[in-house]
Amino acid sequence: MLSGPSGVGKSTLCQKLLSSVPGLEFSVSFTTRPPRPGERDGVDYHFVSESGFRRLRSQRRFLEWARVDGQFYGTSKDQAAQALQRGADILLDIDTQGAEQVQKRFRDAVLIFVLPPGPASLRARHRRRGTDPRVRERRLKLAHQEVLGSKRYDYLVFNDRLETAFQDVKAIILAERCRSKRQIFRARKVLLAFRRAASG
Amino acid sequence: MLSGPSGVGKSTLCQKLLSSVPGLEFSVSFTTRPPRPGERDGVDYHFVSESGFRRLRSQRRFLEWARVDGQFYGTSKDQAAQALQRGADILLDIDTQGAEQVQKRFRDAVLIFVLPPGPASLRARHRRRGTDPRVRERRLKLAHQEVLGSKRYDYLVFNDRLETAFQDVKAIILAERCRSKRQIFRARKVLLAFRRAASG
Repeated sequence: MLSGPSGVGKSTLCQKLLSSVPGLEFSVSFTTRPPRPGERDGVDYHFVSESGFRRLRSQRRFLEWARVDGQFYGTSKDQAAQALQRGADILLDIDTQGAEQVQKRFRDAVLIFVLPPGPASLRARHRRRGTDPRVRERRLKLAHQEVLGSKRYDYLVFNDRLETAFQDVKAIILAERCRSKRQIFRARKVLLAFRRAASG
Repeated sequence: MLSGPSGVGKSTLCQKLLSSVPGLEFSVSFTTRPPRPGERDGVDYHFVSESGFRRLRSQRRFLEWARVDGQFYGTSKDQAAQALQRGADILLDIDTQGAEQVQKRFRDAVLIFVLPPGPASLRARHRRRGTDPRVRERRLKLAHQEVLGSKRYDYLVFNDRLETAFQDVKAIILAERCRSKRQIFRARKVLLAFRRAASG
């Protein structure tokens, strides 16, 4: 799970990761917020109406959902289940509220928080995006709350330079795959081969 | 700490890591075992006599020491302390007994075990090295013991292909540097900047 304040560069990081880490799949979230220029329905998000979102929620189709800055966001339960069944790792771009919910269900989930160098870089990013000044200041307050929530995360990645942040997140994914708890079956095979050699 | 049975390729991995990961220093161990062809005193090991080793041990100059296959091995306390003071990470090529001792003193230490595909690859490696057949079989029994000890390790890396194993260990080092507990000071700076922006 990748979290971080709006404007920190999560989408760019996700795109770079998906094109360079094999066995990684993006979980396309549902949202009621309007698409930004360049965002594609079904790729970046499933864009739905508020009534559509509420219907999916009542059908228990979300692994987690949250309301952030007046808009709903939700993670599809089916997509996550299918990817896990295929043995793939799932990448979630998710807010701190949502990440907490998912971690309660999946103890094995890994939480990565992307930090900006400071509020100035987020302000500049929002200005470039053409975000309304009032929305911009509200986002900055939200960013402060999100950054406070980063304390519960496993990893902190600083996006002072995109390439460094990308290499860091990529390393975290590769390293987590090497954790002993995730290598039990493969290690057992090696152990058995040694046991046979020792007794034979 | 990098552990693994004799012949699994730890030295090659260490060399590759030291030349590609900035801020990583190799802890040169003391040993009573004779140098292998190509090994240099003070670079690969500090080669000492048994009486020399015992003297250093009585002077409490070792972070840990162990006797493996009749030979003594010890990690220098001074070198580790100096590297940590400079803010560097220390790479130890260490047996499972030694790793356990170091972890008791340094809770923050990271344990990586390098596994061979199986006993056959170790046998082949020892044959290429020209190891005496009787020593070879003893090493294989020791390897079995070491592999059993891998259960307590944080990470398991499979050296089926050197390049993959190298990328895995490198990723583990980079990822461990991003762990929240190691980023507290840097994160605090960002948090303070957001707090000032929110209140100002």
